[in-house]
Amino acid sequence: VIVGLGGGIGAARLWRALLDRVDPGELTLITNTGDDLWWYGLRVCPDLDTVLYALTGRQDTERGWGRRGETWRTRDALRELGEQPWFNVGDLDLATHLYRTGALRAGHRLSEITAELAAAAGLRARLLPMTDDEVETHVALACGRAVHYQEFYVRRQAADRVLGVEYRGAADAKPAPGVLEAIGAAERILLAPSNPLASIGPILAVPGVRDAVAAAAAPVLAVTPIVTGVPIGDPAEQRRADSRAALLDAVGLPNTARSAAELLRDLLDCFVLDSADGKNFDDTGLGMGVIAAPTLVDEQGRFPRDRRSGRDLVELLLTYPEEQG
Amino acid sequence: VIVGLGGGIGAARLWRALLDRVDPGELTLITNTGDDLWWYGLRVCPDLDTVLYALTGRQDTERGWGRRGETWRTRDALRELGEQPWFNVGDLDLATHLYRTGALRAGHRLSEITAELAAAAGLRARLLPMTDDEVETHVALACGRAVHYQEFYVRRQAADRVLGVEYRGAADAKPAPGVLEAIGAAERILLAPSNPLASIGPILAVPGVRDAVAAAAAPVLAVTPIVTGVPIGDPAEQRRADSRAALLDAVGLPNTARSAAELLRDLLDCFVLDSADGKNFDDTGLGMGVIAAPTLVDEQGRFPRDRRSGRDLVELLLTYPEEQG
Repeated sequence: VIVGLGGGIGAARLWRALLDRVDPGELTLITNTGDDLWWYGLRVCPDLDTVLYALTGRQDTERGWGRRGETWRTRDALRELGEQPWFNVGDLDLATHLYRTGALRAGHRLSEITAELAAAAGLRARLLPMTDDEVETHVALACGRAVHYQEFYVRRQAADRVLGVEYRGAADAKPAPGVLEAIGAAERILLAPSNPLASIGPILAVPGVRDAVAAAAAPVLAVTPIVTGVPIGDPAEQRRADSRAALLDAVGLPNTARSAAELLRDLLDCFVLDSADGKNFDDTGLGMGVIAAPTLVDEQGRFPRDRRSGRDLVELLLTYPEEQG
Repeated sequence: VIVGLGGGIGAARLWRALLDRVDPGELTLITNTGDDLWWYGLRVCPDLDTVLYALTGRQDTERGWGRRGETWRTRDALRELGEQPWFNVGDLDLATHLYRTGALRAGHRLSEITAELAAAAGLRARLLPMTDDEVETHVALACGRAVHYQEFYVRRQAADRVLGVEYRGAADAKPAPGVLEAIGAAERILLAPSNPLASIGPILAVPGVRDAVAAAAAPVLAVTPIVTGVPIGDPAEQRRADSRAALLDAVGLPNTARSAAELLRDLLDCFVLDSADGKNFDDTGLGMGVIAAPTLVDEQGRFPRDRRSGRDLVELLLTYPEEQG
């Protein structure tokens, strides 16, 4: 079994490519829930839903989040009531949150509900929340306020200076059933190119998870979410980059691929940086394998093959270290 | 101030006609919340919303409930998840429930939230829930199960024999702020042509309300919801009639206008029956005034004038007893 750890869009891209190559039944995807929020009484899990929609062909791939063919009737009706919802929930997306919230209120656990939502959508890979408990990533802004990560990212467009990151509730959270077992039994552990502090950080902050990854017999590989050698074209990508940079800055790290690697220093066998950054990367003292590959998807959502090796990112991740030479 | 007590559709029809004749600021509408239910984690208040939509021109008057121009995207998406929601919530309607639930979760009271929803929709009459506490009408079915009234009425189409009616939570509920004060200060109290046991009953079951109405100085008038002398044309009206009959049967009363009057015997100065039932009505020993008027709206939602007196229902309700001869 391959175990993936990750957040939303970055993870969804890699897991989608992985699903084309491996038996879905052999894939367990442990997903960040630190972005989860209560929205008008509904529990919204942005990362779980992004992964779920992306892996079941229902994602709006142009927008990068939410469902394809989405409409906004309810949101517009909320505006008529004088509300200004900054978090965008469409009419199709709402059904997911209603299902989840109804089941939570009936006493079911997020992990059970997530399995039901995945089964209803025909996802054969195993999708696990990092925890069934409520953990919320909050960021301390330079203005003195601490806000939910989604408020920083969506409402404030990741435009603030951030002074600190806190995973509220994490210290008292338990890994969801199956999380530690999957990590312990994994043949390979992959950390997705997700925001190091907003997406990977919360998962590793759930007591027991970081230790389990560190102790795992399987090779542990991470793909960099930070690519400095390729200009960012798209405003949504720019916002993701701004958010990564702001949170790294809050912990005193520069916005480089090396920072992403350093945060995982105790865990990784191998760090995959982008081919475009190969020459700028200083691996002095990192203490892990470092390889380069094209880590950015093309317009069809595919990872290009590396010119030298002829392999793409997924192939490298699946064969390391045997095929490294 | 005129105080109205009532439920959903029957009340909405009368209040709408009243609003054309009196200053909306002089109207306080105390509304049944025994039909309220949790629906996928959202608090739905069918009677409050029916009244609110009807009085602000947003009701689907053909269907008799819900909003005009409604769509069903979220409900259809729930069905794709394998759900079979028996309670119909449309995309526009959802916004009301989201607003309400978000505010309830933030600690606000239903009466405050209702006032906000009314203000946002431009309703100038005062709309009050009977209570801020959770009261739920349950009916005991012949099969042995007790179900929420909405499950009996919507899901089971009011087709069961009912053995009992229970207002769960009523004994511990408090009247919403303003309810007792409005009744005590009323110049006139009107009981809408709503289901006697499913709509009027829960309001009167909130401790203090029945006593306040009984003690009120104002004349108390009720309009019959039961008209036996006019054939029922519409399936929705038939279902309402079936529900009234089933609940009356549960308390040992026949499905007659007189039963509706008897349930309010301690409260009423005057009972208004339908002109079509005038000849069949036995008022022996009732101990209240009884007058007849056309109580059924025409296709435009208007109450017709009485042929003899030339007055319509609203006029009779507003002038009793002075204008009675």
